[in-house]
Amino acid sequence: MDIGIVGLGLIGSSFARAVKKHTDYTVAGWDINPETVSAALAEGTVDTAGEEQACGCGIVFVCLFPEDAVRFILGHPFPHIVCDVCGVKGYLAERLSGKIAGYVGLHPMAGREVSGYAAGSAGLFSGASLIIARDKNTQDTHIEEISRLAEMIGFGRMVLTDPDTHDRVIAYTSQLAHVVSSAYVKSPSAVEYVGYSAGSFADLTRVARLDPKMWTELFLENRENLAAEIGNLIGHLDRYKNAIEKGDGGELFRLLAEGRERKDKLDGLMKD
Amino acid sequence: MDIGIVGLGLIGSSFARAVKKHTDYTVAGWDINPETVSAALAEGTVDTAGEEQACGCGIVFVCLFPEDAVRFILGHPFPHIVCDVCGVKGYLAERLSGKIAGYVGLHPMAGREVSGYAAGSAGLFSGASLIIARDKNTQDTHIEEISRLAEMIGFGRMVLTDPDTHDRVIAYTSQLAHVVSSAYVKSPSAVEYVGYSAGSFADLTRVARLDPKMWTELFLENRENLAAEIGNLIGHLDRYKNAIEKGDGGELFRLLAEGRERKDKLDGLMKD
Repeated sequence: MDIGIVGLGLIGSSFARAVKKHTDYTVAGWDINPETVSAALAEGTVDTAGEEQACGCGIVFVCLFPEDAVRFILGHPFPHIVCDVCGVKGYLAERLSGKIAGYVGLHPMAGREVSGYAAGSAGLFSGASLIIARDKNTQDTHIEEISRLAEMIGFGRMVLTDPDTHDRVIAYTSQLAHVVSSAYVKSPSAVEYVGYSAGSFADLTRVARLDPKMWTELFLENRENLAAEIGNLIGHLDRYKNAIEKGDGGELFRLLAEGRERKDKLDGLMKD
Repeated sequence: MDIGIVGLGLIGSSFARAVKKHTDYTVAGWDINPETVSAALAEGTVDTAGEEQACGCGIVFVCLFPEDAVRFILGHPFPHIVCDVCGVKGYLAERLSGKIAGYVGLHPMAGREVSGYAAGSAGLFSGASLIIARDKNTQDTHIEEISRLAEMIGFGRMVLTDPDTHDRVIAYTSQLAHVVSSAYVKSPSAVEYVGYSAGSFADLTRVARLDPKMWTELFLENRENLAAEIGNLIGHLDRYKNAIEKGDGGELFRLLAEGRERKDKLDGLMKD
């Protein structure tokens, strides 16, 4: 089989590297940046380069931001399977499902705080979850082919869902985390943190180091779900704030104990 | 020199273990739980056990929750130096400074999501910051003695500050992180997270696994600072929410880019 990769950034180049490392498939890559294409060829991240070659492959991963991914997929012919790998799925499905026969929406649950070709690695997806957001037009055989490849290149779990469920859950598990981190670093106290922090501060602020362009697009394409999650979190934070201001130890204990129980329960779900 | 440790939980037993591992000082320990005392003696975590022995040492670490620490320190004689290791410092200084000649307030920036004697380790403080919250009654020679010991047992940095500054900054770097994590896990979407999460969700929710009793006490003893930080974060979150609801991409990009810049700047401070 041959695998096409359009967009050789962090995710695209990681797909290419992982396919090269774990399979004997041929990889045809493409990127609008000629330097990236040269580097990918020189390093053997791809076997051949070219827009047409990439699109003609058995499975094509279009690793672009959502708007660009839609434009690219609508503007090219794909003989077999074409996947996007964006962090929102409803936006893509609305525009592509039923119009492009071989379209399958994917979301690999892996990333880094750095982007671009050089940041990619063959191990990025190792043990990660691959979400497949199927809709009524998605073909079972395509899901099977993608799952087989995903397993070969290191994914640890396949989650089959639909675009709406994906967008609702991802607003909470990923997008809200990025909003909170980004907001967290804005306290006037932040510049004094050195020497006053252990793991919790590092954890809470890590993903504030995000690509503003990509996340602006993702957030706006999942507006209602994300706004609802932020509103929900604000409501909970307000309860802690009120209990603290009133000095209501009973209520504060209850809130913290409830959070602890819930966290224990969530950790238990992961182990199942 | 001999070192006294009162309270052999996570922090106390880690102090004891670190002193035994890195120095040839004698450790006298005490705990209200006789089983903990027996275990500490049997495992050589302490050399001798007893309330009086512990309090009579050259440096005594009282590793109890704040209210208990105040009660214990006021209720015993200390010939030389006595330190508390609580996460709030103003509450302690108000009650102890000037009344207990050898009192020095400390806050080791290290912890775990599990507590108790068995969770302690000699390496818990390795590379960590030790905050010394001095006030007008704190003696320089005491700070020097504590700093010397702290360096021997693995602390990587000493931060000399005052109780008010400590409480203001810690409300942001540590307490707010625990509030946010505890609130974060309460979304109705949380139970669906498996397969939809990568590092950011794990990071944001890690410290929700906290000891509700201890943190209730710490939060109430730092009420104004913490309520102000929660309010500040809610204000920032609200801006993201508004921009998302309005579909204002320019404003959302600005908010995210500002967060990214600020995070880069904070990471830079740590490297200095």
